[in-house]
Amino acid sequence: MIRVGIIGAGGFAGGELIRLADQHPELELTFLGGSSSVGRRPAELHPGLRMDLGLTVEDADTDLTGRCDAVFLATPPETSARLAPVLAEQVACVIDLSGAFRIRTPELHHRWYPKAERPGGLADRFVYGVPELVGDQLTGASLISVPGCYATAITLGLAPLTDLGLTLRTVVVDGKSGSSGSGQKLRTGGLHPYRNGAITPYAPAGHRHAAEVRDFFDHGKPGTIGSLSMSAYGVSHVRGLLTSSYVFTDDEIDARELQRAYLRFYKGHRFVRVRRHNETMIPVPDPQAVVGSNYCDVTVVPDPEGERIVVLSALDNLLKGAAGQAVQALNRRYSLPEETGLTMQPLMPT
Amino acid sequence: MIRVGIIGAGGFAGGELIRLADQHPELELTFLGGSSSVGRRPAELHPGLRMDLGLTVEDADTDLTGRCDAVFLATPPETSARLAPVLAEQVACVIDLSGAFRIRTPELHHRWYPKAERPGGLADRFVYGVPELVGDQLTGASLISVPGCYATAITLGLAPLTDLGLTLRTVVVDGKSGSSGSGQKLRTGGLHPYRNGAITPYAPAGHRHAAEVRDFFDHGKPGTIGSLSMSAYGVSHVRGLLTSSYVFTDDEIDARELQRAYLRFYKGHRFVRVRRHNETMIPVPDPQAVVGSNYCDVTVVPDPEGERIVVLSALDNLLKGAAGQAVQALNRRYSLPEETGLTMQPLMPT
Amino acid sequence: MIRVGIIGAGGFAGGELIRLADQHPELELTFLGGSSSVGRRPAELHPGLRMDLGLTVEDADTDLTGRCDAVFLATPPETSARLAPVLAEQVACVIDLSGAFRIRTPELHHRWYPKAERPGGLADRFVYGVPELVGDQLTGASLISVPGCYATAITLGLAPLTDLGLTLRTVVVDGKSGSSGSGQKLRTGGLHPYRNGAITPYAPAGHRHAAEVRDFFDHGKPGTIGSLSMSAYGVSHVRGLLTSSYVFTDDEIDARELQRAYLRFYKGHRFVRVRRHNETMIPVPDPQAVVGSNYCDVTVVPDPEGERIVVLSALDNLLKGAAGQAVQALNRRYSLPEETGLTMQPLMPT
Amino acid sequence: MIRVGIIGAGGFAGGELIRLADQHPELELTFLGGSSSVGRRPAELHPGLRMDLGLTVEDADTDLTGRCDAVFLATPPETSARLAPVLAEQVACVIDLSGAFRIRTPELHHRWYPKAERPGGLADRFVYGVPELVGDQLTGASLISVPGCYATAITLGLAPLTDLGLTLRTVVVDGKSGSSGSGQKLRTGGLHPYRNGAITPYAPAGHRHAAEVRDFFDHGKPGTIGSLSMSAYGVSHVRGLLTSSYVFTDDEIDARELQRAYLRFYKGHRFVRVRRHNETMIPVPDPQAVVGSNYCDVTVVPDPEGERIVVLSALDNLLKGAAGQAVQALNRRYSLPEETGLTMQPLMPT
Repeated sequence: MIRVGIIGAGGFAGGELIRLADQHPELELTFLGGSSSVGRRPAELHPGLRMDLGLTVEDADTDLTGRCDAVFLATPPETSARLAPVLAEQVACVIDLSGAFRIRTPELHHRWYPKAERPGGLADRFVYGVPELVGDQLTGASLISVPGCYATAITLGLAPLTDLGLTLRTVVVDGKSGSSGSGQKLRTGGLHPYRNGAITPYAPAGHRHAAEVRDFFDHGKPGTIGSLSMSAYGVSHVRGLLTSSYVFTDDEIDARELQRAYLRFYKGHRFVRVRRHNETMIPVPDPQAVVGSNYCDVTVVPDPEGERIVVLSALDNLLKGAAGQAVQALNRRYSLPEETGLTMQPLMPT
Repeated sequence: MIRVGIIGAGGFAGGELIRLADQHPELELTFLGGSSSVGRRPAELHPGLRMDLGLTVEDADTDLTGRCDAVFLATPPETSARLAPVLAEQVACVIDLSGAFRIRTPELHHRWYPKAERPGGLADRFVYGVPELVGDQLTGASLISVPGCYATAITLGLAPLTDLGLTLRTVVVDGKSGSSGSGQKLRTGGLHPYRNGAITPYAPAGHRHAAEVRDFFDHGKPGTIGSLSMSAYGVSHVRGLLTSSYVFTDDEIDARELQRAYLRFYKGHRFVRVRRHNETMIPVPDPQAVVGSNYCDVTVVPDPEGERIVVLSALDNLLKGAAGQAVQALNRRYSLPEETGLTMQPLMPT
Repeated sequence: MIRVGIIGAGGFAGGELIRLADQHPELELTFLGGSSSVGRRPAELHPGLRMDLGLTVEDADTDLTGRCDAVFLATPPETSARLAPVLAEQVACVIDLSGAFRIRTPELHHRWYPKAERPGGLADRFVYGVPELVGDQLTGASLISVPGCYATAITLGLAPLTDLGLTLRTVVVDGKSGSSGSGQKLRTGGLHPYRNGAITPYAPAGHRHAAEVRDFFDHGKPGTIGSLSMSAYGVSHVRGLLTSSYVFTDDEIDARELQRAYLRFYKGHRFVRVRRHNETMIPVPDPQAVVGSNYCDVTVVPDPEGERIVVLSALDNLLKGAAGQAVQALNRRYSLPEETGLTMQPLMPT
Repeated sequence: MIRVGIIGAGGFAGGELIRLADQHPELELTFLGGSSSVGRRPAELHPGLRMDLGLTVEDADTDLTGRCDAVFLATPPETSARLAPVLAEQVACVIDLSGAFRIRTPELHHRWYPKAERPGGLADRFVYGVPELVGDQLTGASLISVPGCYATAITLGLAPLTDLGLTLRTVVVDGKSGSSGSGQKLRTGGLHPYRNGAITPYAPAGHRHAAEVRDFFDHGKPGTIGSLSMSAYGVSHVRGLLTSSYVFTDDEIDARELQRAYLRFYKGHRFVRVRRHNETMIPVPDPQAVVGSNYCDVTVVPDPEGERIVVLSALDNLLKGAAGQAVQALNRRYSLPEETGLTMQPLMPT
């Protein structure tokens, strides 16, 4: 059994990590850390969790040497930037779900996460944890940075295109997310009367996950993406997001070949489902068809006008976009079958 | 492995049964039956389901001799009334999720299900499948009738009171359910614009699940319940229901004793969680804290005015209120641990 | 023109009062008061409001002598209890939307509003502002207390029964409300992820609006109501509420006569619509059919089992349940046609 | 008084037209036409409407000579294409809310509305009814085509840019709409369980409203727009839409000048509100801040990266996107003040 700790136990991602760890056959949950939730039991914080989990939340700064093999950080970027170097000395593997170590390029990181200062060079030691795209880098990794929810969706959607050798001259991303993506911060705009019925343009002209995507591709295949801009909207449900990437390329593309290329690229990767737009009774991808699972559904649709490629990705922002992908990365880290503890299927309708 | 068939594969309960059977370690799904969905693959009908389930829907009237050990009927009452006697000759166990065999008393059945005529005496051979309340009757049963979603919630809520020997002079039940309880029937009132934002009094002065509850208690402990009336409302979410039972009794009750009696009554029954109203960060029971699981959360609150007992029950109408309870009953039928294949925890927030 | 002020301009009811005052042909809005919102313009606080309203919020304690003829208090009970006596010296009419002066009986008031201490005897000078039920008491009134949202619905639902001379032995009220009823208080449970999909039993065994209803009937017709208990639930939409009153009486009732009695009782009262349950394409009453209007839809359904009368009332909690009724009461106060400025019809679908 | 008829009385837009006509001081509603709703009263079809409207629905093909001065067609494109030429002989003004006469270019029309064949040349006689952009063309017009809901939002958003003389090289539009935009057609995907929680990519790579926008600008200022592509999504609320137009231009733009240009362009047009993104307590534009009104809120945000201009437009799809704009156009037709009967402010929160 791998002994795991979860810091940030009171948040949404923390709650999902507790749930997943509890149902994972190879994990033993040995530590919960928090700040305002210290002393509370998990089912008090997350009323859905089973009531007989035998842990209470402890101080986030507890020394975990000897208590945990791996630690998940479901904390704000500032906290992760502070805790990760400390924990790296105490446990074999630190898996950070925040944005503290996602962007390698220091200037770019500083621009989007000005408060999350991190030790020089530490970011380079983190593996970017989108398991489908980083080969075997995760095996044995001691530091893993879990991608942002939007970034996961966008990156998984674009990777088959860059793999084809296409140059993506202009990429325009429109992201739409449910309210759980905003966490539990108390703000008037987050109250139910203001979010229900809303299409809130909360990041109308720029989002840090775009910088993250950009940085990822630039480290892998510099020059592949020309410009990449993003806007993000909060819509009127709770869980699940959809990203629409409108891709303009000067390269020749064969519409029929695109679908095959996507299928080929993700062959053997069970958590990415390449789907045709009209293959089911409701159009896909739609977050409602992945909620509760670790799936990312991806659909590519060439515009019949011939001028752009539309790539749509849907995932559960708390699972494949956070806690689920974190556990998937841990499975890879420990050379377990990727789907261990993650076989739950979507809950639909919900 | 127990070979199971599911008839009514296209509906919501059918979809949940497929999902549960697929994740159940002791079940092998060998048959899907339907009518309008014949020839379709499960993932076409239920876009959330994994895409590589190797079955297609066949005709509901297929002879299942030798193909299935147990068959779930997720069909309308009329269909179940017709198919159950036929299937009883073909397979070892028929588990009906409809209302066709829930009410034993023929007159009462006929009043609420006038179109679901059933062979004389057949209803008496069915075990009423609320596992927590029927002792070991399910072991080896060949015919099981899964209770209605509301009926399950009400019955689990009231049973500890009747067990205390109380006479429930007057019980007033108010049921509130999400839209998945209405199934997929195409009606204008079921369209999103009419259901979103609604509190629809669809059964303002009487509901057949009240007759079912009444019938159950009268067969067990005649005279325990005086009058039991019910009203039901559709509210603005999809999955999960809450029943409020306002109980008036002339017997003496000790408020502190009530909570203990509930805890004692459900000791060892993992799917019923007896919860205090204020024990978590949001008031419970609330369907949102059970959605995706097979739990029924029950809370008893004596009115401080002393004149009534308020009993609240929350469950996922498609799981503990339908497919989950059906699998739980099947587990009991085959003497498997009750929770086999049903260990998924609530998905919250959703 | 009647010069009006609104104190509590930042809240939901305050926002609705601004909107209604602005569209009212006989009102001139001359003062907005608040605390945390001082210095803000209405459209900043309520983004829907037209942007050229020429006022900014001032301190709630401003002396309004000579500036306003009437003042609406859309403030918490404690604030209203403090401000009402002061304003009574400054303006001709104070209309309080809080609970500070609704319950006349001092002991009962103290029990439910322990923090809203009010000057002895002041409550007796307030007219309880449900215009349909208080005859001409509102004409020229200097102090008006606007009933609670639930209380309005329940009282309008029960009044025709007591008018028939029936003794209502036992009344069980189940209230279901959207999230706008909780105002803008920052609480974790009020965040969208926790309220969406919820049926929250926030007042499972007692609600102060029940005490208010009780007090109203006891002052009018003592002994008419035996016991009256209430439970209240928050459901998954924003605006509108439904109350279900389950009435048990020992008196003889004629089902057909009931409907006629309701129609007769509300003849000439345009804001109460007596509706048959099945008269439209969706069952009524349903808050969705009154949202945006000052209507209260009322339906009476005798239980076919003969043992109870079900009375359902639906209204927009911010209009007929708050700001709309306040303006209606002001119209009566100034002998304007009751519907002046209140002719807007429901916005459906929404 | 202008005598008006409404054909298509049973649909959502028809219901809104009835409501608006009823509250309009210069209109007299003299005819309601329909097909399946013949013989029904308005309040049966639209339970929100006041119950004493003295009309019933008649056959859509009734001769209206002498009964109506103007007729609104809230009918499918095929029906409008058939009825408009007939009605043009009977009444002074026909206002069509369908897509039958929006696109002038015959080939383009045929491609997007293949079933709505229209008499040659008739489309050229229609005035495109977006009142803010067509000067005084509406005055005295006998045939008016009301723009599509998305098209209205997009066109109002882009017009100030083309007015500046900019060439919009590439425009990428992402439209997000509530479920009322889909009307009352009975489809499984339109049921509440499937639409709630969804982000449905129902038109992922092309929408006919984009063709409409294109056609409008090409008739006004050919060459102004290079490419214009659109994708459309259904999200989890009922009323209101947002369009995001991502504009790429090679022309020099001054960020500060843009906002001023928008304000200048819409000066005096009360139904278009040019708003800064952060000017209120929630980000705007957001449909929730316009629902229930005839406003279109427009915000322009230059991307700080300098490469694109983001233009956001929000409106109520049933009002400024349909019935409200139709009445606004009629007001212009009859030289009434534009806002006559349309002064209702947004209903927020809802």
